[in-house]
Amino acid sequence: VVALLAARMFGDDDLSKSMPVALAVEVFHNFTLLHDDIMDDSPIRRGQATVHEKWDVNTGILSGDLMLIQAYQHLCEVPNKSTLPALLCTFNRVAIGVCEGQQYDVDFEVRDDVTIDEYLKMIELKTAVLLGGALEMGALSAGASQDDADHLYAFGRLTGLAFQLQDDLLDTFGDSASTGKLQGNDIIRNKKTFLFLKAIELLGPEGREELNRLFSDSPADPTDKVVRVTELMASVGIPQEVAQLRDAFQAEAYAHLEAAGGSAEVKVVLRALAEGLLQR
Amino acid sequence: VVALLAARMFGDDDLSKSMPVALAVEVFHNFTLLHDDIMDDSPIRRGQATVHEKWDVNTGILSGDLMLIQAYQHLCEVPNKSTLPALLCTFNRVAIGVCEGQQYDVDFEVRDDVTIDEYLKMIELKTAVLLGGALEMGALSAGASQDDADHLYAFGRLTGLAFQLQDDLLDTFGDSASTGKLQGNDIIRNKKTFLFLKAIELLGPEGREELNRLFSDSPADPTDKVVRVTELMASVGIPQEVAQLRDAFQAEAYAHLEAAGGSAEVKVVLRALAEGLLQR
Repeated sequence: VVALLAARMFGDDDLSKSMPVALAVEVFHNFTLLHDDIMDDSPIRRGQATVHEKWDVNTGILSGDLMLIQAYQHLCEVPNKSTLPALLCTFNRVAIGVCEGQQYDVDFEVRDDVTIDEYLKMIELKTAVLLGGALEMGALSAGASQDDADHLYAFGRLTGLAFQLQDDLLDTFGDSASTGKLQGNDIIRNKKTFLFLKAIELLGPEGREELNRLFSDSPADPTDKVVRVTELMASVGIPQEVAQLRDAFQAEAYAHLEAAGGSAEVKVVLRALAEGLLQR
Repeated sequence: VVALLAARMFGDDDLSKSMPVALAVEVFHNFTLLHDDIMDDSPIRRGQATVHEKWDVNTGILSGDLMLIQAYQHLCEVPNKSTLPALLCTFNRVAIGVCEGQQYDVDFEVRDDVTIDEYLKMIELKTAVLLGGALEMGALSAGASQDDADHLYAFGRLTGLAFQLQDDLLDTFGDSASTGKLQGNDIIRNKKTFLFLKAIELLGPEGREELNRLFSDSPADPTDKVVRVTELMASVGIPQEVAQLRDAFQAEAYAHLEAAGGSAEVKVVLRALAEGLLQR
């Protein structure tokens, strides 16, 4: 959808011209989910058995490989072949970033010296780069200049970062009735998100030691652990810290959206879409 | 090497122009080996521990994914961007074929009704298509016409089929001292190659029953089994059958090589290379 919107920003009302790019992004995204589910051994995706669960791991690996190739096949079908070199280049850059993000995510699970900058780099690669790339490629497929496409990429990248921070925030401080997710899931899984890393930075020696101790344990009943971690985080103003960084990213994102050329009408839609992502 | 030779056939002595295509094919080929080794759980490749064995399966999956993307990244670097759409299209077609071939190979292991045509289709996709694709893309990168590139593709495809039949033949009827492989390895693994399928077709009811029985067993000492299967195959002239089909493929391959335009000098090298593959 964001690829098609980016194309419309630059006047391409004939969606069939930008559809190959949108399909490439969508199939690529689903390829990453398929292989990620194997790596995480996840049994369920979108309420259904995952591919490796329904068939087997080998079928999952091979199906994912084929989907990655099919994503390139879609890209190949852009009617304006002169845009293909730039599109392919962007697609490769994005795809390499997403894979690197997944490797960071895997590596970070066993590292205890991850910095805040490294965490932000990881969520940028895993989530934000694809959103930015979809916008950039949609714009390029409609003949936008690389400069305009770069602004859209930056808008998507920064919105993706803000979205992921909001997602982390809601996981711990959200209302599980409205998010539909188990509250404190990241805490239960000892996931070292921005919230954890920032709390470690801001807490005094005692609090830091307690938080580290809580995050090295996986009690059968995690209720007390979730409550105590949440208290420790709240004591150093973590919700405010996250909200501040999130809003800074989002403000920068909107500045890039404004700086891009193209239809003001479609910009309003993209901005509303970004706001919808953050106000869940 | 064959991609670079195909480029030279069409006058491109500046190898740097066709190198991106050659690298794309080479990296793609190694990607397939990496993921195939995971699927077959092979511990050793080229005398070294396989990636999933040295690191872990997840690292193997992700490294393979990245290599597939890097193959496209190499392709992207062809200096003559006008050849990129055709190159990308060919690369996708070849890559999809290779993955389909791997799936057939997996499926055939548990099927007992594989036909000779299906087996030939499988080895075409798994082996021959990549050899043909490397030649086609090398030619295209040097500005050859699609017609000439198609002839080179056919030359590679048919040589690949002949090569695989020769490989199957040597596995059972070769001299293990000169092939460096264990003789009868396919028989020990109950692999239903062209030799097995053709023997089933040509044997009478008794021989067919005996061969099927031998192929449903995996004795601890396979010596007698290998001897008896080899006898049964020899009794219906399997070595001659294989040699006949192999030579038919190769003759057709050479006809396509002759029909292609380009340097006669380089054709001699390609022909010698094909002969070298068959006379191991």
